[in-house]
Amino acid sequence: MNDKTHDRTAMIVEPQFASVTAEQGPLELECGERLTDVTVCYETWGTLNEERSNAILICHALSGSAHAAGWHDGDDRPGWWHDMIGPGKAFDTDRYFVVCSNVLGGCYGTTGPCSPHPADGRPWGIRFPIVTVRDMVSVQRRLMDLLGIERWFSVAGGSLGGMQALEWAWRYPDRVLSVMPLATSAALSPQGIAFNEVGRQAIMSDPHWNNGDYYDRTQKPDKGLSIARMIGHITYLSDESMMQKFGRRGRALRDFHFGHKEGYHFDVESYLHYKGNQFTQRFDANTYLYVTKAMDLFDLPAEAGSLKSAFRNPRARFLVVSFSSDWLFPPVQSREIVQGLRANLADVTYYEVQSDKGHDAFLIEVDELTQIVRRFLNRVEIKGESHFATTPSKI
Amino acid sequence: MNDKTHDRTAMIVEPQFASVTAEQGPLELECGERLTDVTVCYETWGTLNEERSNAILICHALSGSAHAAGWHDGDDRPGWWHDMIGPGKAFDTDRYFVVCSNVLGGCYGTTGPCSPHPADGRPWGIRFPIVTVRDMVSVQRRLMDLLGIERWFSVAGGSLGGMQALEWAWRYPDRVLSVMPLATSAALSPQGIAFNEVGRQAIMSDPHWNNGDYYDRTQKPDKGLSIARMIGHITYLSDESMMQKFGRRGRALRDFHFGHKEGYHFDVESYLHYKGNQFTQRFDANTYLYVTKAMDLFDLPAEAGSLKSAFRNPRARFLVVSFSSDWLFPPVQSREIVQGLRANLADVTYYEVQSDKGHDAFLIEVDELTQIVRRFLNRVEIKGESHFATTPSKI
Repeated sequence: MNDKTHDRTAMIVEPQFASVTAEQGPLELECGERLTDVTVCYETWGTLNEERSNAILICHALSGSAHAAGWHDGDDRPGWWHDMIGPGKAFDTDRYFVVCSNVLGGCYGTTGPCSPHPADGRPWGIRFPIVTVRDMVSVQRRLMDLLGIERWFSVAGGSLGGMQALEWAWRYPDRVLSVMPLATSAALSPQGIAFNEVGRQAIMSDPHWNNGDYYDRTQKPDKGLSIARMIGHITYLSDESMMQKFGRRGRALRDFHFGHKEGYHFDVESYLHYKGNQFTQRFDANTYLYVTKAMDLFDLPAEAGSLKSAFRNPRARFLVVSFSSDWLFPPVQSREIVQGLRANLADVTYYEVQSDKGHDAFLIEVDELTQIVRRFLNRVEIKGESHFATTPSKI
Repeated sequence: MNDKTHDRTAMIVEPQFASVTAEQGPLELECGERLTDVTVCYETWGTLNEERSNAILICHALSGSAHAAGWHDGDDRPGWWHDMIGPGKAFDTDRYFVVCSNVLGGCYGTTGPCSPHPADGRPWGIRFPIVTVRDMVSVQRRLMDLLGIERWFSVAGGSLGGMQALEWAWRYPDRVLSVMPLATSAALSPQGIAFNEVGRQAIMSDPHWNNGDYYDRTQKPDKGLSIARMIGHITYLSDESMMQKFGRRGRALRDFHFGHKEGYHFDVESYLHYKGNQFTQRFDANTYLYVTKAMDLFDLPAEAGSLKSAFRNPRARFLVVSFSSDWLFPPVQSREIVQGLRANLADVTYYEVQSDKGHDAFLIEVDELTQIVRRFLNRVEIKGESHFATTPSKI
């Protein structure tokens, strides 16, 4: 256990991220390559109790960071799950010690393609090895040691974050008291892979991508990254929410010509352009390649032999949540996870939240999610470890 | 009436398209601009009867052409609806005279951005004015005169072709005995607009697009067009059909690095790349911009005041068909068309075909569609004009 653990002052401010970074040393990756130095960037909220039993790990999605809640100097908006994490909120920081770390391959402080290559000090770019959800969880697992935590009270995440939560349940069943995979899947659908691949192609076709080596250039592959983000955004919204939000509102036919800047007919087009451009100011194009690839590669049934085997000997209690209009990670995929759990007689609670917000619902439907999460965490607190821990089903 | 009409030999072969082209003179466009010379490229099958009452107009979708059926010299596959058009087929060329013309703005013989600009003889590029479904139908309407046809026995089309069929019903109710809008919508959803816009951005971001002026260059915006087509393909398939066709099959993790050519993990990725590349060999990038824009702009309720007003005084009989897994033009949009028709007491037959083939189903589900279309055409032949022609509803 590291002394750093108790030094809460170290957790207040760092120049760029107002998060803490910690060196982890080398890491063997699933692809067979080895990273000689891994740095992990994380943030925490609340206080670790004396028993070290109240720690919750929050796993972020594709474009997230360790900055899940609160405000840093210069922020124009708070952390990405600010409405869910804090005093009296779903993840109540008066009761829980909440931890969130940037994923391996990320661009918010944890080692990734924009980190310096140990050989030449220049950014890795696409020399960076392929990383997987398994590797991301390995880094979190070592962070757990650093923080002196024996068992997470809960591991929670939506989308790619939910994949990490599932990986925790499969790989470290003894180190999690409860697990919350939200708006996620045990394996991305070919449709999801296809959307990710088109986004990656948009980035790699941008001449400013320059085979991933653009960090010291004035022009970055912003156009490609922006297109990738636009595609992503369409898949995060639902048809209904787009209809409600934009309908077919737009400008008149006669005001439009191709090739004119900002010449969009429809509000939905302007919105996507705005979102795409905004994204290029805060995200790294190579990280987009690596993290979407990790999402594509995650395949718990393949890794474990089957979904049922992935959850054998379940000690943890599970909360699985899907959202009715989420077509990127549709409810049927959550129900498959639930079936895999029930086949092991696991203690699993499942909600399909009625929402028209699409995949983004896990970030937006705060009221309903707060009730669901709070009730679940209370239940875990009262009941502790699952009774079915040692009686896996023979079904 | 033009003598060309009867000269069937003229319909056999032309150098590039094995289709016929006809000059139409100037055309005022919906955008307010004027084309001084419009050429239309069309193909026909079967024989026009003496009463000139057996002509069916087939309207093609985004990437289609006048070559809807049969084989031309050098074809490696037949026309795009070959399984539906021919002797004994759904559109039985032993009984009907079937016509299909390339849309205005197209790249298969009808005037479009790759046609010569009258001022300088160089391709129009994005100097070409914005064209709409209304303009496309104007060109078809004049082709009708050229062919000496007073009234189409039927106008049929899927997707963008279905929009043209709806436009016929609204603008020329006296010139259509029956109308078949298939897998279409009276107005594209914002989600559909969004996908089209991302495709257009991929094209316009390609440096070889060169502001639409690439026709005399060696390198064309193939990469951008290929990405646009990949996005399109995802929306034409369903999640289920992708799962059945590709699942998560692919190569091993260790064989993959970014930046390596053909380095795709998953079969679904290779398939999309193949389809995207193939498309660049047969389609013009600027046409892709113009035709998707026409699709976005089509808005029958806005044009007519409401869907109900669009179908007032219906003399035609309607066949509306949707496909259960089509999420680009979902069944609910077809049901809205049906409601608008029924509010006018129109004679309308509606089918929702159960299919897992997504939007592409209108090209693939030939057996079911053949039965539906044949039954409908027989009924139109027996019953002729709708009885409700002069009794529009007051509902």
